Formats: sequence, structure tokens, C-alpha cells
Amino acid sequence: MSQDFSFTLQATDGRARRGEIFTPRGTIRTPAFMPVGTAATVKAMFPQDVRATGADILLGNVYHLMLRPGAERIARLGGLHSFMRWPFPILTDSGGFQVMSLAKLRKLDESGVTFQSHIDGSKHHLSPERSMEIQHLLGSDIQMQFDECVRLPCSDEEAERAMRLSLRWAERSRKAFRDEPGRAIFGIVQGGASKPLRLESAKALAGMEFHGLAVGGLAVGEPQEVMLDMLETTLPHLPAGKPRYLMGVGTPDDIVQAVARGVDMFDCVMPTRAGRHGLAYTRFGKVNIKNARYAEDLSPLDPESTCPAARDYSRAYLHHLVKAGEILGMMLLTQANVAYYQALMAGLRESISQGRLADFIAETRAQWEAGEASSRPQ
Amino acid sequence: MSQDFSFTLQATDGRARRGEIFTPRGTIRTPAFMPVGTAATVKAMFPQDVRATGADILLGNVYHLMLRPGAERIARLGGLHSFMRWPFPILTDSGGFQVMSLAKLRKLDESGVTFQSHIDGSKHHLSPERSMEIQHLLGSDIQMQFDECVRLPCSDEEAERAMRLSLRWAERSRKAFRDEPGRAIFGIVQGGASKPLRLESAKALAGMEFHGLAVGGLAVGEPQEVMLDMLETTLPHLPAGKPRYLMGVGTPDDIVQAVARGVDMFDCVMPTRAGRHGLAYTRFGKVNIKNARYAEDLSPLDPESTCPAARDYSRAYLHHLVKAGEILGMMLLTQANVAYYQALMAGLRESISQGRLADFIAETRAQWEAGEASSRPQ
Repeated sequence: MSQDFSFTLQATDGRARRGEIFTPRGTIRTPAFMPVGTAATVKAMFPQDVRATGADILLGNVYHLMLRPGAERIARLGGLHSFMRWPFPILTDSGGFQVMSLAKLRKLDESGVTFQSHIDGSKHHLSPERSMEIQHLLGSDIQMQFDECVRLPCSDEEAERAMRLSLRWAERSRKAFRDEPGRAIFGIVQGGASKPLRLESAKALAGMEFHGLAVGGLAVGEPQEVMLDMLETTLPHLPAGKPRYLMGVGTPDDIVQAVARGVDMFDCVMPTRAGRHGLAYTRFGKVNIKNARYAEDLSPLDPESTCPAARDYSRAYLHHLVKAGEILGMMLLTQANVAYYQALMAGLRESISQGRLADFIAETRAQWEAGEASSRPQ
Repeated sequence: MSQDFSFTLQATDGRARRGEIFTPRGTIRTPAFMPVGTAATVKAMFPQDVRATGADILLGNVYHLMLRPGAERIARLGGLHSFMRWPFPILTDSGGFQVMSLAKLRKLDESGVTFQSHIDGSKHHLSPERSMEIQHLLGSDIQMQFDECVRLPCSDEEAERAMRLSLRWAERSRKAFRDEPGRAIFGIVQGGASKPLRLESAKALAGMEFHGLAVGGLAVGEPQEVMLDMLETTLPHLPAGKPRYLMGVGTPDDIVQAVARGVDMFDCVMPTRAGRHGLAYTRFGKVNIKNARYAEDLSPLDPESTCPAARDYSRAYLHHLVKAGEILGMMLLTQANVAYYQALMAGLRESISQGRLADFIAETRAQWEAGEASSRPQ
């Protein structure tokens, strides 16, 4: 196992865990939310503003980066951290998920996946070995095994085939991973919506030398209760001493529920994508800023936020910017959303330390339901 | 005349002038470049970043703001400064120019212009009186008279008709303007590309009680030499003690040439619009960042710039962002461009004070022509 990468549990509350992942590029406070920096940018945000929201780590996408500007090019330019001016930890996905969701003319076999770029139709091949090489070229701090993620619902036969293939690819990924100081690799539990398959996957991966384990193939169309069910089945069989990462999740409520079940890390495009479409996540729930009720609302999204975008600009101004299609509207809402997600994670961490996670969750959900009216003078 | 608004000449070099306009909201160092904040935002920039480039004053557009979100609404929300979080001076145009260039189904008569919104087809009327009312509602520091701006080339008959109408509208605008402390109104010289018409317009406006005079109807399609010819005809007949504003101009070279002829203020969408289209203005001339030569260029736009966007990000990264259509590419290039324009104005002001404007212009143009290669190790 690599040196200079470690996970320390600091507190637990029920199954929820608070901890820290140490890497040479910085400490990741868990439970952690990783903003998504798909194409070497967290869309519509300056890197220093991402940092200022409290983000300890970003996610980068192998699929997008291998196509444009290219992994070898990023390596020649000094690696992804320097390229995008984010000197803190970066986790990279393996490319498998995006190949399935974005690429054209996919052909999957034991060796890997051949596909055409959605950008220019050029032909590419991804395998466990090539994915590890790309993630190494990017300079990733936490690499993900190459896996196959199936959409839900799917047949158990299909889920089983993909899960077993992902296990074989896990072994090949682990073998191809270069153990260098500070670099880590996570395995990925698959198995669709089948408890026996999830269990088998988790147990097999727990026996391999991964630095952390992820749960993949969830939040891909199934109801929240199915996702939580799979987590409850899977997590008890993952090593307690390693970080647990729920991939691609999710809404604030998804995150809160998953933290209560023992998840340590999350990533999702939701706060950034919503921010580009006029939707704000706040302490008071979701705010559709395009709604006419905000046209003359001088209150900010959240007067108590430490984020300038949420605290200093009126809803009336945000409403105007979004209605007018102004880029500044996307910039402000994205920043406010990422800041809210980070504030939520900070609240979860703090409440775990204090042994009052259940109360925190109840208060948080009550505030979401009560909406912004609860914070205004009557 | 209003109190609390004054113009002080600090130095001259040939016909070029360095000065300061004092307003209650702040001092405007001239020659000044005003970034354009069309719809209550300098596109793709946070207001504090606009300020950080060195901008003392912004321009707001009556046409856009009256249509969305509406002048009365902005007034109810506390005025444009508070709405867009720009507490420093704002100059508003009168709406005349945009009505002619953007609105549908225009009908112009002595009273004003009736037109349909380009946004939703709604019908509106602008007159000198309504334009002054709107600019007052917005809370503008420097209001512009309502005028008619004709496109060049046009017949002398057409230019004369519009110029005389604009003079009558100047009188009505001046009368409708509310003399309140700190508020100013500028007249606008028209007359197309005709020296006698420009002269007549300038002399007539010089006799009215305006706080400053603008030259309008230039940089609307004519060659630079025609524009400069019109300036040389017009400016000597404007009062030396009042600021002179060349509307909608222009390229860095247009600005340098106009400053040398005695212009004090400029506005133009060029730096912001170019920044959204992959074009950077730098000390080394224009840089089309999409050019393949920048794909692996680790140098920034300008290592000596004080602007983070120009100094801290590699051309390779900017190239990638723009090729990938990323919003951050627009954010960075816009910031870099506005910063370059402000740095150019600072250089012009300094060289006027030092009596070396001609040398500064020669050096600046030589640097533009030599390009970035001149700054790199051989």
C-alpha cells in the first residue's frame, strides 16, 4: 500500500462516521462532498472560489479529459492540478460510467470498451490498464478502478455479469495501479439492485488491497429507498478502516441519509448543474429563482451564509440575471449551491462529533420543509 | 448646474488631457474606460472583479434595463447601484442608440420613438422626457441626452435631419433633467461624417448647460480615419473645462488615437464581448486563444499583469477552456480584457502627466505589432 495516504476515524454516531483522509496534497474532512470538475473546471467557478466554499477535494472525469485536452497533453503540461490551478486533492473516476452514458458506438468485451468520442467521433479504447495509466498521467490523488456501471432497473443476470466483470477489472486495475507515495486507488462495489450481488461484490473487494471502497451504480434512476437499501446491505461488509465513497450522489437529502448509514465521500453534478439552470439549494430547501415571486424580493438566498453569492445578492437580482440569461446568474447560483453543499457537510461532520446527528438531520429537514418563510419577519 | 459634480484638468500633453471627474459616488480618473454593464451586469464578471481591474465607472443601458427588469422596478429595489452591487459611479446611455440597433418596428417622430421590445414584442415609447425619467429612476450619476444616432455611411440630408432633431431633443433632455446634487447630464454631438454638421452640433451644444459633452454616431462602420477626422473637427469647439466622451469606442488603438486628440471618456463592449469569444486583448496585441499554437503553451497571457486571469492561468488552459465551451474560459478572458483596457488607460494617464504620451503610444503600438514573441526568451 502507498505511504502518505491514510484515513483516520475521529468520531462515530450510530453508523455515521467523521474522519480525515490525509494526502500529501491536503487533508480531506469526511463526510466530504467533492464538486465535479468534469473538463478541468468546476463549471462557472474560479478555482479559488471553489476552495473558499470549503471543498477539500475535487472530482475529475477521465472520459472528458482523455478526449479533450488528452491525458498525455495534461501530463506534458505538468498534470491536472497545475493545469487547472487546484493544488489540493483530486479524485478521478475511471471513465467507465461516462463511456456508458455519453460515448457513441460502444463495444464492450473482456478487455475493455471501444467507443467513439461524443465530441468528434474519434475512436478510443479504455481498459483497466489504460484507465489507470490515464489517471496516473493526470496526477490523480485517488484513482478509481475501471468498472462497468449498469442502469437501473436491469435484470439480475445483467447486473451479475457486469458485477463479475467489474471484479475482474478491479484485480486488473489494482495490478496496473502504480503504488507511489500519496497515491491511492479505490475499488467499486457493483451489483445493481440485488442484495446478494452487492454482498458478493463488497466481500470480494474488501479482500483486495484498495485504499478505499466506493459504491457505484446507484442513483441511476432507482427510488431513494432502493439506494438506501443497497447501502445498508453493502456498507457493513466494507472495512471500517477505509473510506467509503457513494458515487454520483446526490440531492442534499440523499447525502444526509447516506451519511447516517456510514458513507464518507460523495460527488455529484447537482449543485453545479442546478446553478446553471436557475435552481438554488439553500438551508430553506430548493429555490427556483425564476419564479415571479422573487422579482422584487430584496432578501438574499441566505443572510447567514458565509458565501458572498448567497449572502450579498438579492433574490430580485438573481431572478433578473437568470431571466436575462446572464452568465453572472450562473456564476452566483453555482457558487451558492456548492457553498450550501459544503456547509451541509460541515454541519454533518460537526453533529457526528457531538453525537447529535439524528437531531441535526431532523432540524435540517424541517428547515427544508418550512422553506424561506421560516427565516423572515412575520 | 448640479453641485458635487466637477471636472478638474490635471495635466495636458498636446491635445491630450489628464483629469478627474468628482462625483459623490467616487472619482473618475480620466482618460477613463467604462466597461459596459448592459443588463445590470458586466457580462461574466463579479462586480468586485470589475472594480479590481481599476474601473472607476460603469455604463448601464436604458434600453435593456427599461425592458427588463424595468426602470420603475429597479427604483423600487433601491436603484441600479444597489441592485447590481456597484456602489461607484454609473453613466447611463439614453436608449436612443439601442432602439435603433435592436428594437423592432421602430417609428420615429418629433416626440420620440415608438418601438417593440426585441425580447417579447411589447410596445414602448422613448422620448427625451421619458429617457431622463428612466435614467433618474435608475439612479444614474451621469445621464445622457436622448438623441438619434444614424449609421454611417448616410446621406448628408439624413445626417442633418438627425443632428437637428438631436439638438431639439438635447434642449428637451436638459429641461427634463432633474438638477440634483451629484447628478450630471451630457449632451451628444451628432452630424454623421460631415464636418459642417459636426461643427454646428458642437457649437450649439457648447452653449447649453451640460456637465459634459459626448461625441456620438462614430465607430458605427466608418474607417478609423473618418472617426479621427470628426474628432479633430469637433473637439476644439467643446468647452475645455468639461469632460469629453467618445461613445461606443473602441479598439485599443481607437482609444489611444482619440486620447491623443483630447477625449476623456470611452465605453465599448469590445473587451467583454471578445472575452466571450476566445479573443484576448493584451500588451502583445490580440490573442486568438483558440489557435492551436496555444494548446501546449504554459505561458500566461501576460506574466507582468496585475490581473490574476492574465497572469496566473496558462494559455494552454485558456485554450482548453474556450475550445471546450467552458464558462470559466469566458470569465477569465473577460476579466483579462477589461483589466488590459484599464491598464492601457492607466498608462495613458501616466504618460500624459509625464508629457511623454507620444512615446508611450509609439511603444505601445510597437509592442502590439511585435506580439508576444517579444516577451519570450529566444
